[in-house]
Amino acid sequence: MKIGVADTTFARYDMASEAIQELERNLSIEIERYSVPGIKDLPVACKKLIEEKNVDIVLALGMPGDEEIDKRCADQASKGIIETQLMTNTHIIEVFVHEDEASTKEELKNLAIKRSRSHAKNVVKLLTKPEQLQKEAGTGKREGGPDARPL
Amino acid sequence: MKIGVADTTFARYDMASEAIQELERNLSIEIERYSVPGIKDLPVACKKLIEEKNVDIVLALGMPGDEEIDKRCADQASKGIIETQLMTNTHIIEVFVHEDEASTKEELKNLAIKRSRSHAKNVVKLLTKPEQLQKEAGTGKREGGPDARPL
Amino acid sequence: MKIGVADTTFARYDMASEAIQELERNLSIEIERYSVPGIKDLPVACKKLIEEKNVDIVLALGMPGDEEIDKRCADQASKGIIETQLMTNTHIIEVFVHEDEASTKEELKNLAIKRSRSHAKNVVKLLTKPEQLQKEAGTGKREGGPDARPL
Amino acid sequence: MKIGVADTTFARYDMASEAIQELERNLSIEIERYSVPGIKDLPVACKKLIEEKNVDIVLALGMPGDEEIDKRCADQASKGIIETQLMTNTHIIEVFVHEDEASTKEELKNLAIKRSRSHAKNVVKLLTKPEQLQKEAGTGKREGGPDARPL
Amino acid sequence: MKIGVADTTFARYDMASEAIQELERNLSIEIERYSVPGIKDLPVACKKLIEEKNVDIVLALGMPGDEEIDKRCADQASKGIIETQLMTNTHIIEVFVHEDEASTKEELKNLAIKRSRSHAKNVVKLLTKPEQLQKEAGTGKREGGPDARPL
Repeated sequence: MKIGVADTTFARYDMASEAIQELERNLSIEIERYSVPGIKDLPVACKKLIEEKNVDIVLALGMPGDEEIDKRCADQASKGIIETQLMTNTHIIEVFVHEDEASTKEELKNLAIKRSRSHAKNVVKLLTKPEQLQKEAGTGKREGGPDARPL
Repeated sequence: MKIGVADTTFARYDMASEAIQELERNLSIEIERYSVPGIKDLPVACKKLIEEKNVDIVLALGMPGDEEIDKRCADQASKGIIETQLMTNTHIIEVFVHEDEASTKEELKNLAIKRSRSHAKNVVKLLTKPEQLQKEAGTGKREGGPDARPL
Repeated sequence: MKIGVADTTFARYDMASEAIQELERNLSIEIERYSVPGIKDLPVACKKLIEEKNVDIVLALGMPGDEEIDKRCADQASKGIIETQLMTNTHIIEVFVHEDEASTKEELKNLAIKRSRSHAKNVVKLLTKPEQLQKEAGTGKREGGPDARPL
Repeated sequence: MKIGVADTTFARYDMASEAIQELERNLSIEIERYSVPGIKDLPVACKKLIEEKNVDIVLALGMPGDEEIDKRCADQASKGIIETQLMTNTHIIEVFVHEDEASTKEELKNLAIKRSRSHAKNVVKLLTKPEQLQKEAGTGKREGGPDARPL
Repeated sequence: MKIGVADTTFARYDMASEAIQELERNLSIEIERYSVPGIKDLPVACKKLIEEKNVDIVLALGMPGDEEIDKRCADQASKGIIETQLMTNTHIIEVFVHEDEASTKEELKNLAIKRSRSHAKNVVKLLTKPEQLQKEAGTGKREGGPDARPL
């Protein structure tokens, strides 16, 4: 088994290293990292990781800016990432941190760290503990922030 | 025959259990459940249920938040779910409950319960009573709320 | 030759019966009807009509509500319907009547009737009189309302 | 070699005839015309022209209205037209004239004429003079209006 | 190895020549240029470069206008470019300069030059120095403007 990690030079924090540390803390598994310029390059990077590097699941990390054009790019990237999953029957866990989710640089950095690690744990669960996800289903999990309260 | 049920840990209520109860009340049929982190993970989860678990129809349950970003995610997920259906010639009944559809937690929970069960009944009809859907065509059915009045 | 008619239980008027009457008034041809819960279920319903029931063309009838979420659903459905046509090289004539196109129930009902019948005629032309469509090209035809004036 | 021309009965001016005249003025080539009801029917019309009538390139002409719903339809059609090109490796030159691009009927008509003819010339260049397009690259060409000034 | 460069006659600056100069300064490699009318013609142009001209990577250059319709066209083009990458497992680096990113013609021209050259360097890195992109991952690179500060 092998995990792919795709990330960008556009992001303002090295989310991939956080995610990789978290993966390695939980699993002894080969990790293939692929860095591209921006989030719109992520879909094909994920596809190449899956089809050319034979990874079994991918973490796609990005940090879209806070302008309208950035929202559009993120939307395009997300659609491409979903399409890639459907073309390959492989999960790609998208970890996007939007600049306007936090009001200070420190807060944004902490969010990037927490969300990257939290989704790395989701990858571990999808690969090795699907029954754990089923236990948590419908409980309001949030990655990078406090969980929502179940109704 | 087999029914797939895909749901998320993001949702704040265990809609899948409601749907499964309703399905079991109506049919004696094998059910395969697959829980993923968020709604954007649902399309490939549905595709895997259809192609790897051989289910004949899927219920895809999710509870998008009430911010603009949540609307975008729901839109991306819905498009992926439609694409999945076209790639597999298989119905996926999408059951999304948006946080801003209700003003209190109790109301939201009741909506989630009713819509999940109502769409579970639609799955039963699609599988075993298509003529019933034809009878109800054009009559303003609403899942989870009061039906609209026919014109 | 065979015509498919797909419609929904969500719609508040039985547009399919109007369309079918109009088709039968013009052609002696087998019609296959397929009713599903909502407009987002229409794309795969059309695809199944084309690939499993071997219809040569489809009428897809729906009546989206007047809220923002309904607009999004209609957009998703329309994109899926276009995709289905491209996957099958088969025309699907989409007949959507939006609740906010009329100000009274009576007006909305009349619009639904007229548009359904008008597009049923388009189906007849596409199947049997393509030269008629060419004659009408660029003349400002509107289905369900008064035609626009040519420039 | 063969050129496809797809147009609609919804349009308020016979753009196709303008385009065809311009094509015939420049090339001695077979032209296949296909008229459909609206712009959402154009993608599959183009695909059928390419795959069933074996045309080498297509002009897709349409005139979307000026309401929000028309913008959405045009967006859906455009996406379908791009998808069609990718499925067939064939250029489809989209010629859409939006009602709100002009303030009088006369102006709109003139725009429709000029843009149709201008894009017909682009088709001729793509087919027979690609080096001409390369010469014009980056020079601010506008079809139907005055060209933009190069920076 | 071969690099494709796709550009438009709509753009108001010859971005392709800038990019090609930068590519040639860094690599001794064959370059295939393909000019089309507008950005919506870029996706199929890229696909043809990849599948008919056998290029290994593409630079797609465009300069969308500053109106709402231009934003929509850019969105359609971007989605088509992502789709093309997924269909071919080949990177296409999109270089779009939006008219409203600058307030004077001079500024816009400089942005077009810098972004074209900067992305040409990304192409070089993707082709020959992927480890360099990994070093720069998460450091806030911006093409054409000052880099963002890492968090």
